Amino acid sequence: MSEMPLKDLMAYMAGAAKAGAEALRLAGPEVRTKAIWEAAKAIRARKAEILAANQADQAAAATKGITKAMIERLVLNDDRVEAMAKGLEEVAALPDPVGRELARWSRPNGLDIARVSTPIGVIAIIYESRPNVTADAAALCIRSANGAILRSGSEALHSALAIFAAIEDGLVAAGLPKTAIQLVPVSDRDAVGLILGGLDGAVNLIIPRGGKSLVARVQADARAPVLSHLEGLNHTYVHTDADPDKAVALTLNAKMRRVSVCGATETLLIDKSVAADLLPKIAQALVDKGCTLKGDEAARAIFAMEAATEEDWRTEYLDTVLSVRVVDDIHQAMDHIKTYGTEHTECIITENAEAAELFLNSVDSAIVLWNASTQFADGGEFGLGAEIGIATGRMHARGPVGAEQLTTFKYQVRGTGQTRP
Amino acid sequence: MSEMPLKDLMAYMAGAAKAGAEALRLAGPEVRTKAIWEAAKAIRARKAEILAANQADQAAAATKGITKAMIERLVLNDDRVEAMAKGLEEVAALPDPVGRELARWSRPNGLDIARVSTPIGVIAIIYESRPNVTADAAALCIRSANGAILRSGSEALHSALAIFAAIEDGLVAAGLPKTAIQLVPVSDRDAVGLILGGLDGAVNLIIPRGGKSLVARVQADARAPVLSHLEGLNHTYVHTDADPDKAVALTLNAKMRRVSVCGATETLLIDKSVAADLLPKIAQALVDKGCTLKGDEAARAIFAMEAATEEDWRTEYLDTVLSVRVVDDIHQAMDHIKTYGTEHTECIITENAEAAELFLNSVDSAIVLWNASTQFADGGEFGLGAEIGIATGRMHARGPVGAEQLTTFKYQVRGTGQTRP
Repeated sequence: MSEMPLKDLMAYMAGAAKAGAEALRLAGPEVRTKAIWEAAKAIRARKAEILAANQADQAAAATKGITKAMIERLVLNDDRVEAMAKGLEEVAALPDPVGRELARWSRPNGLDIARVSTPIGVIAIIYESRPNVTADAAALCIRSANGAILRSGSEALHSALAIFAAIEDGLVAAGLPKTAIQLVPVSDRDAVGLILGGLDGAVNLIIPRGGKSLVARVQADARAPVLSHLEGLNHTYVHTDADPDKAVALTLNAKMRRVSVCGATETLLIDKSVAADLLPKIAQALVDKGCTLKGDEAARAIFAMEAATEEDWRTEYLDTVLSVRVVDDIHQAMDHIKTYGTEHTECIITENAEAAELFLNSVDSAIVLWNASTQFADGGEFGLGAEIGIATGRMHARGPVGAEQLTTFKYQVRGTGQTRP
Repeated sequence: MSEMPLKDLMAYMAGAAKAGAEALRLAGPEVRTKAIWEAAKAIRARKAEILAANQADQAAAATKGITKAMIERLVLNDDRVEAMAKGLEEVAALPDPVGRELARWSRPNGLDIARVSTPIGVIAIIYESRPNVTADAAALCIRSANGAILRSGSEALHSALAIFAAIEDGLVAAGLPKTAIQLVPVSDRDAVGLILGGLDGAVNLIIPRGGKSLVARVQADARAPVLSHLEGLNHTYVHTDADPDKAVALTLNAKMRRVSVCGATETLLIDKSVAADLLPKIAQALVDKGCTLKGDEAARAIFAMEAATEEDWRTEYLDTVLSVRVVDDIHQAMDHIKTYGTEHTECIITENAEAAELFLNSVDSAIVLWNASTQFADGGEFGLGAEIGIATGRMHARGPVGAEQLTTFKYQVRGTGQTRP
């Protein structure tokens, strides 16, 4: 099959995914659970193959002078393979999101109207070098009864193919067509262009999972709806009624737990009434952990740090750098977030419930937290099982995208012969 | 303001709509209700102006040799103005869709997570010659706390401006900025292109409401998400256990009540076991009302009609024409719908609950009905108040789009100092 011309191959895959998606939709929830469960078993059974394939990817990557960060994302080991299997088991244990009655009401003429969740159809997922995305994305699509066309970054293709064999095992063991979930088996970069073209309408949704340039390309060229994950320029705001210990612990965690995740805090806003007292404690804790601070004048008058420029307020560092601004009050903090934020994740630290509710209601971001680290912006932490990303658009889904967010709905209307006057 | 260069005008409108949308979002539900209620009053108070403006549009249209159907859509009279005012009152009476708690749960670490409905932001609505869309779209956007940029077809611009003055009255009477809802005050066609460009990110959603060519242009060029309303190639299927009287009454209503609406049935599928008995009754009733039938061979052997071609199964007539096919059973009926349908609205007529449930669950259309006319595909009939169209995509909203469908959501997370391990 992989020797067909790419265009024919992709057209074949699209048709097969559509048919496979229908079989997945019409199968019961138990069948989908079994497929994911069996895939988890197969991941463990195929561990040696998967690790060998990953070695091949690593060897090829080494010859291409790929960055250390990319290698770190690419590498699999015993623990990471086991984590993939466990991840599948978690998704298998999730409630099936399809066929739920979302709303139901009757009309004066006796019509009974139910809004019922259904799968989206065929989802194309375009990703880069993390091999576990193959397992996570496949599991979420099976759970939500969507067909899938997976496109792994070429630098992880051997690993992806080995993991994908386990997904096929799961589908087959559950009696499902293995074409329901497919992986583009070749590294030809033109495949992405064909997927973005929508494969003759067979693709109902495209999800890019990767860096800015990938997402930008998908948004520019896609002929099907896109669910994207963009920047998280997140803020932690220390209110005048903040508990000092929480302020230190939460800011430290929000910035430094992992600096490369989209939920990391990039700017600290601190009320001027408490800055003189609290900023030195927070700043020292951050500096002790290796964080570089860049502050406005008021912040620098309190604690020695570099000067922040206008550009800093607009920068998602994804690094051990934090910009710091002293604000007059909660309104100035919210204005700053509105001006510079990316509507991803913001936190207020305060013991004042009224201020917290004002912040939770007024700040127009996908996730707003009160006294909790912005690093909780994650599908797993939200209890969704695996996630396919944090959606930063406003349509369809916002925030963590799990199986439930991969559904749409239809209306079932039950009548007794009603005609419309 | 209308003498500014168009690009500057549109940029100004976009910025003002964004600020206005925020005021609308932060205002309480009562304020939004009052604005719509006062707009309804103002529509009645401004009736003479609105009718005069509509006369001017009609006079201009007459000189351009516009089609009768377009004139029919354009014309306002006392009844239609009153209907607009009543429509606004209905939307004012709807429950406010913003700030609803859609889900709430706690995590083992004590985090309390709530999913709460929020407005989308600024919605651009591009429509054609129906003046009432100005009132309906404005009311739905106020109800859902979204800012709006309305773009009326140039042939209805005088009417739209007169109606829009009443919307502004409503906003002002409620103490809201009148820039929350704006109407492009000039007929320059370049305005559509600028809106499709997304106005520097100020537009969160574009809704085209009009014919195929408008929707196609919007889908091709939009740099923001689009909620579209496409073809309704709908099917009514008469099952072997259909009640004969319902089969006649429902088919007649589904086809002939109004042939130009997207919920009209375009193809009749009838089980071969009952075709000899029922098809003559159904066909005669349709022919008596002036409907032309086009059938497959089996249908033509039972009742005299034109021959249907492959093209007929794919045609949304929006006219007094119905294609007719005799099918072997429910499975062949569902296969036909899958092959030729547009996933809009389909109906099964049967007294057999098992067959009905199979159809309701298996057919993958936005609206599936059992023993009720496909002409019920309408937001008003669903009880949503006004509607802005029937969405035929699968993302965000499917089926009738009312105020609730113009919302998105965010997560409010309440903690007590939790950091992520």
